[in-house]
Amino acid sequence: MGQIKEIKPAYTEARCGKHLAATEDALYVIGGKWTLRIVIAVLSDHRRFNDLQRTIKGISARVLSSELKDLELNGLVKRVVLTDQKPVVTEYLPTEYTRTLKDVISALADWGEKHKKKITRKE
Amino acid sequence: MGQIKEIKPAYTEARCGKHLAATEDALYVIGGKWTLRIVIAVLSDHRRFNDLQRTIKGISARVLSSELKDLELNGLVKRVVLTDQKPVVTEYLPTEYTRTLKDVISALADWGEKHKKKITRKE
Repeated sequence: MGQIKEIKPAYTEARCGKHLAATEDALYVIGGKWTLRIVIAVLSDHRRFNDLQRTIKGISARVLSSELKDLELNGLVKRVVLTDQKPVVTEYLPTEYTRTLKDVISALADWGEKHKKKITRKE
Repeated sequence: MGQIKEIKPAYTEARCGKHLAATEDALYVIGGKWTLRIVIAVLSDHRRFNDLQRTIKGISARVLSSELKDLELNGLVKRVVLTDQKPVVTEYLPTEYTRTLKDVISALADWGEKHKKKITRKE
């Protein structure tokens, strides 16, 4: 049996590894099915649970509740309880850190738009 | 019972809807657990099945195979069979369209790097 020889440019290999690792770090936090959808809604001033559920089509209350808890833990959502109102109101607000995701969302939205055009042209 | 009144700036609402829709279009295609990881590996000149599986930690052969088929259908991977070699070799190559994802990947990788720094600082 012959030896398997693979010659690969180190630059590409290193860049691939770095990109893969950093992208995986990002996807680990925001790659869930709903995460970015919730982040966009929160960034767009949807503050209340019911409002968020209405905006994000198809999400169940149970999943939204659990996702909001995760986002809060990651510092991507701030949960504020307004006790000066009756009944007490809970709001979910974006943080400074949430805003760092804007570039990611813009890039995704741009690509999504292009992709839609491409597909619509095809059919 | 009082009426529920909600006043929201139309601009934000419209932008949210547009962003949500475009981002969902994007996530529909590239939001899967493995999709972007495979795209990055293919863009980084990992061309063969075994090579891809080695590069993308944790992916099973069954899933990789099915993902590559989906990517091919979406024009994000080109499957090339090199018949001039024995045994016949199959390679997966990026397309022009794959390269349109570079902005998305860069944005994600940048954010992932920042996020890692943030987390490392904290602990």
